[in-house]
Formats: sequence, C-alpha cells, structure tokens
Amino acid sequence: MISHISGYPEVVIKYQKLFHRMMQEMQKALHSYGFENLDTSPVEKLETLLSKSGDNEIYGIQRANDRGNNFSPELGLRFDLTFSFARYIAQYSHDIAFPYKRYQTGYVWRGDRPQNGRYRQFYQFDIDIINKGDELFWSEIEVICLISKCLHILGLEKFTILVNHKDILSGIFESIGISQEKFTDIARLLDKSDKIKIETLALLLEENGCNRTQIDKICELVTIDFCKESMEVQTKILEQFTSSERFYESLEYMRKLITTVKNLNESQDNIVLVPRLARGLSYYTGFVCEVITDDDPKLGSICGGGTYSNLISNLGAKQQYAGVGVSIGLYRLFKLITDAYTEKYENTIMIATQDHSMMIVYMKFANQLRASSLDVFVYTELQNLSNQLKYASKRKFKFVVIFDKKEYQDGIAILRNMEEGTQLTVKLNELHQLILRMIKNV
Amino acid sequence: MISHISGYPEVVIKYQKLFHRMMQEMQKALHSYGFENLDTSPVEKLETLLSKSGDNEIYGIQRANDRGNNFSPELGLRFDLTFSFARYIAQYSHDIAFPYKRYQTGYVWRGDRPQNGRYRQFYQFDIDIINKGDELFWSEIEVICLISKCLHILGLEKFTILVNHKDILSGIFESIGISQEKFTDIARLLDKSDKIKIETLALLLEENGCNRTQIDKICELVTIDFCKESMEVQTKILEQFTSSERFYESLEYMRKLITTVKNLNESQDNIVLVPRLARGLSYYTGFVCEVITDDDPKLGSICGGGTYSNLISNLGAKQQYAGVGVSIGLYRLFKLITDAYTEKYENTIMIATQDHSMMIVYMKFANQLRASSLDVFVYTELQNLSNQLKYASKRKFKFVVIFDKKEYQDGIAILRNMEEGTQLTVKLNELHQLILRMIKNV
Repeated sequence: MISHISGYPEVVIKYQKLFHRMMQEMQKALHSYGFENLDTSPVEKLETLLSKSGDNEIYGIQRANDRGNNFSPELGLRFDLTFSFARYIAQYSHDIAFPYKRYQTGYVWRGDRPQNGRYRQFYQFDIDIINKGDELFWSEIEVICLISKCLHILGLEKFTILVNHKDILSGIFESIGISQEKFTDIARLLDKSDKIKIETLALLLEENGCNRTQIDKICELVTIDFCKESMEVQTKILEQFTSSERFYESLEYMRKLITTVKNLNESQDNIVLVPRLARGLSYYTGFVCEVITDDDPKLGSICGGGTYSNLISNLGAKQQYAGVGVSIGLYRLFKLITDAYTEKYENTIMIATQDHSMMIVYMKFANQLRASSLDVFVYTELQNLSNQLKYASKRKFKFVVIFDKKEYQDGIAILRNMEEGTQLTVKLNELHQLILRMIKNV
Repeated sequence: MISHISGYPEVVIKYQKLFHRMMQEMQKALHSYGFENLDTSPVEKLETLLSKSGDNEIYGIQRANDRGNNFSPELGLRFDLTFSFARYIAQYSHDIAFPYKRYQTGYVWRGDRPQNGRYRQFYQFDIDIINKGDELFWSEIEVICLISKCLHILGLEKFTILVNHKDILSGIFESIGISQEKFTDIARLLDKSDKIKIETLALLLEENGCNRTQIDKICELVTIDFCKESMEVQTKILEQFTSSERFYESLEYMRKLITTVKNLNESQDNIVLVPRLARGLSYYTGFVCEVITDDDPKLGSICGGGTYSNLISNLGAKQQYAGVGVSIGLYRLFKLITDAYTEKYENTIMIATQDHSMMIVYMKFANQLRASSLDVFVYTELQNLSNQLKYASKRKFKFVVIFDKKEYQDGIAILRNMEEGTQLTVKLNELHQLILRMIKNV
C-alpha cells in the first residue's frame, strides 16, 4: 500500500465534497465583492524565491534523471501565493486596471518540519487588493470585512482578528534603542512570543544582542493581554514605551481602522490591537493582521496578512504599486469545520440500471433530465437493485428512478425518495415534471 | 523585470477570467452527470512515479538549502492526474462507494523539452470512472459522451474522437510475429507515427529489432487513413493483417462502442477507429482514445485516455478495480477558444467613490445589494469620476452607481448603464429594486 507522506496532507474521500464546497462558497463571496479569480504558476525562479522567503525553507525542483549530479536547480516551488502574485503584477502591470482585486487558491510548499497543523504542502486561499497609490486604508478595511464574511459563511462564529502596524513596533523599538537593522529579527521573535515561554524569549533576545533594559521592556510588552483592554487603556500602556511621532500617527491610524471595521461589521467580530504582532515575512510595511479562533487557540493562526508597499516595485514594476492581502489557511480552517459537519442529501437523481440491454434508454432519459439543469447519475455497473439502493443511500442521492424493459414499455417507473424512504409508481412522461416540482418545493 | 520561465506558461491577465469560467462550466457539466470533485496531492514518492511514468521525465523536489549535496530526493511532482488518482483509490478504497465517478483539475509537471503546445508544467482536467468489476463498456461510453459535452460547452464544434483497443494492435502484432515484450516499445512508435515521416518510422522500427516484413506491414498500417473509410472497409483492411480471435473480439467490441456512441450522440461528433493509436502510458489495458481538433490538427491531441484494469491493484489495493478515464489538456483547448473570444459585460455593479468621507455609506450600501445576491465592486481608491468610469468600462461592469454627500442627503443617485452608455437619476431607496429588475430583464 502506498503510504501517506508525512507533511503532505490529503483530504480524505469523505470530506472531498465538503472541501470543494467550502472553496466554492468562499469564491462566491469574493465574486460578490467584484473580485476576480487569478491563477499563477506554482514554479518560480529559485534565486528570487530564496531572496524573498524570510524564514521559510524553499523546495528546489530538478529532473529526477539528472540525479547523481550536484543539486543545482534553477527553479523552485512557491512558498506562498503573495510573492507569485506580486511577481505577476510586476510582469503584467501594463495590462491591468487598478485597483486590482483578486482571490487565488493553490498549493504552496514549505521546508518546515511537519507538526500538528503545520505542513510541507498546503492549500492557501488568498485575497488581495493592489492600488496604484500608497493609500490603502479602505482596501485594508475591505480585506478585513472579507475575512470576516468568509469565516462566517463557513460557519465559524468565534474568532479574533488581531491587528497591528509595523510603525507601532518600530516606534517602541526606536524608543528603547533597538536599531532599524535589527527590526526584522527582533520582530520575528516577538511574533513567536505567544508560542514560547517568556524565559525562552528573554534568552533569544539576549542572543540577538539586546541589553537587560531592552529585554525587560519587550518582555513587559508581550505579557500585556491587549485583547482584554479598552483602546484608551491600550494607548496609556503603549505611551509608557514611546512618544515618537511615528508611533502616535500609526496608533491613530489603527484606532480609526478598528473603529471603522466595528462600525461596518454586522456580526460584531472581535478585533483588537496587538502590538507584538509582526508576521514572519519581511515584505510587510504597515498594517498587519492575523486571525485566531477562540474554539482552538492552539491551532495557530487560520489567516494572516498585511500591507506590502514595496514588494511589487522591488520585483521590477516601473510604477509604484501598493498591496494589501491575507492568506487563509484552508486545512486549519477545514479542521474546525469538519467537526460540526453532517452530510446532507443532494438533489441528484440516480437512474438504477436493472437491465443492461436498456442502457441506451437510461442514458437518453438522463440527458433529457439534464437538459432541465438536473444532476443525474446513471449507475453504469451491473449490480442487483438492493446494492444500487445502498449505493444511492451512501452517496446521499435524494431520488432513484427504477424501471425495466417491461415497465418502460408500459410507460411507468418507480420514483424512490431516499431521504424519506418512500416510493411512488409514476407515469414516465410525467416523471420529469414531477421531479422538478419536488426539488423546487424541497 | 521577472521574466517568463520557458515551458511554464501562465494565463495572461486578460484571459484569467475566461480560463476560470471555462473550468467552472466544465465542472457544472460533470456535476450534471453526478461526478464529484477530487483533489489529490501534487507530490508523490519519487520511486513510484519513476516506475509508472513511461516516457515522461519526472521532477524530483528537495529543500534548496540542502544543495551542494548529491541530489537524492525521495519525492517528486506528479506527471499526470491518473496515477495520483489510482494511488488515492488504492489508499482509501475501503471508504469509497463504487462505481466512483470523479473529475479533477490540477497542475502536472513533465521534464519534456518545451515546444509549441508542449509544456513542463500544465493544467489537466481529468474525468474518471472506477468500477469494482472488469466490465467497463458503459463507463467508456459515458466518458466519451462527457468529452463531447465538455468540448461543445466550450464552443468547440469540429473535432474527431479517435478510438482503439490494445487487443486490436496486439492481434496485428501477434500475426506478424512481434513479441509481447516488444509491444510497448513498438506501440509507442506507432503512436508517434502521425508526427514523423514514414522513413523515420521505418528506421526506428529497425532499431527496435523489426525485420523487413514487419516494417512493411506496420508502415502499410499507419498509412491507411481509417477516418475516411466505412467500418466494413476498415474491417476488411484489418483482416489482411490478422485473423486471431483476440483481434476479432476486440474489433467487435469497438464496433459496438462506436455504434452506441453514435446512437447516443446528439451532436453527431466524428468518432473513428484508428488501429495505430496506442497512447504513451504503459498502464492502459484495453480501450484507448484521443481527440484532435479539425481546426488546428498540428496542435496535437487536446484530450486522451483509456482503460486501466491493473493500475489500482498494482498500487496495493486488495480488491480488483478497473478504471477508465481521460485527461483534457486545458491550455491547448484554451488556445482554440480564446481566438473566438469577445469579452462580455458582467452584471457587476460598481459603486463610484466621489467622497472618501462617504466610504462607510458606500460600503454599507454595497452590503445591502449583496444581500440580494448581487455582485458589487466598491471603488476604494480616490480617483476622479472620469477615471473611475474608464475603469468600469475596462472591467466590463454593467452598472455604476454614483452619489456624493449632497445627493445622498437628497436621497438620489445616478445609475449609469455602461453597456448602453445611458444614465438615470433615481431615488436611492428604489435603486435596489430597479437594478434587480434590470438584471432579470437583461
């Protein structure tokens, strides 16, 4: 038996349909906001991938029959969808009407050690808006609204949207004397601080060249539970750290953002400022966000993203484009959904095949029903009726149509309602309309 | 500028929407036949891939930071969807209700030299039926009907479905003394015979150990244009090659198959027996097929597949399962479609943003419209109205709603019909119903 490859999860057969439906419903939500689908290549130049990957380890690809030689691939697999998206924008910018709003689904690959909820290959669902200018406030608002909409569509009720601005963190770092060059390294440590002990954090900060005062201040910052405080209290706490203009500006920006989201948000989701939040990727320049679920906080973030002002021009675009986007981790999200899942009957009609000499009749009849936008499954194996009914029940088909040669000649058929366990004898020429009525009434 | 990677095509921005719609319409057709979506992992064990790949060269993957070491990856990228599908069936067979009918879309990777219409990375759309028994006749019929349905949905009118049975070829080989061991190699040469000169074929056959008589017979076979002959003439021609029972049985089988497809096929597509047809992959065991378009025969096959009786059990399934399936090459197909493509106006409503202090009002109004299943794009950048209208025109949005603070207070708005180039002043509280009526009437 071919075994499961560690870190390369596959949706088991039972949930394939649900997984597909989950994506389709999210796509529908995105279309309702006028977003387009985009599909970019999973393969990129290795050199560019390595220069943009931050913490992520990249997979190179090479023809297997070249093995034995040194491994020197020129191509690699994408580590996220944002990077490929930015590269695509840089490449096709002259053909794009901005603002460009798109969503994308696809696999990404990471050289991480596999662990609970962390994979080497996984599906992402990305939402991004690219503007020509630098002003992204309302795009950030729209992206947050869409996260909320998608999660609610999927039945997730309790989650918290954590937001921050890189300049809030920069302001704090500046005031305690941490240099701009060290920003990314220290910010990444802070970003992980919810997963490690405070003593470990202190040690790691020391290893990264922080002095005692800096370590104490940072440890103080990460231990404050901002989620529980009002915005006024949050500001007071933060003012103890810094008073730089940059800090106040970005704090004011975030305050306006949070207020607007709360005003627009019909479902009153929790949105809080979390100053330690930095996100691992180095390309974020301002607003960053992350979503955690209250149902399973250990699962890690189910969604994360932010604003990237320079990524696209760094990849060679002649003009300035700024983007904001989030990635939704579908597998983690799916884990939360499947627990509450019960399979529903589907409006599919199965035509049982009692007599193989009648196959052409069955298939032609199926085509007639399909012409009215009905989904019709013709059972194409020769099995006894009882096995065919078991099959229809397992597949959750709602109706089974049964007739043999004799019944066909008499112009009648049996219509079985699998959900209710009832059956009727009906005239064949009335069956079509009857099914349409029953499905419409259901 | 990041350049295009040779052999890794990407759909350009202009056609992204059409490409997505093409896949959605094919999915809808498959759902109407009761097929389910399936998604399997793009990464498989390299060893298994290499043993099943036939002619195809496989890509191995490895973490890029391990480079410098010898290249010895254990994993690789799939070369087609059928293999991964068969592996998935073998793995989950106890959870699957058979017959299992599914479709799948996804990337596959091949180490081919890139050339016109032949890529290193491309999208496939697969349709497969797996039965528990060995009897696949009606499943083969259904798969052919589905190819035809999908191609017609996409607007392709002229194509030819080439079919064959491996036993027809075996019967001919047997009668001219070509051994079973050589079957795959010689069959592959025949399969390529439409792309190479007859002299080259003769040379290649000689290199593969065929004698003069065998070479003459095979060259005679491939030069017959079966597409133009009646089935009676075809049979007479083939009888000159062989009279084995196996040959007659499979010829009778294919004749019944072709007659049934013609009987069921409302659009009267061309379906012909082509005895040279073998398909490159070694796992096909009986029926094989290929589709070429009459519009651009040089494009190569846009679809191909066949019956694989042993693939799943060879991959470790405890029971016997037999499958039949085809892969549709979406890029080649897409190339044919885009030529005839004109962009249509879409029922999307754009809300122009004349006043950023009104953004919350615009966004809330958009949400109201969305609640009636309308697609609403809010323009989130600050641009003058003329630029916003240009944008709406480029994106082919049908309606633009325009109001500023003053108009909002007066309860009015302008509704612009972009397709017709007309505009109306309407009451804001009647706008919602008006748009719904206009879209329904269109």
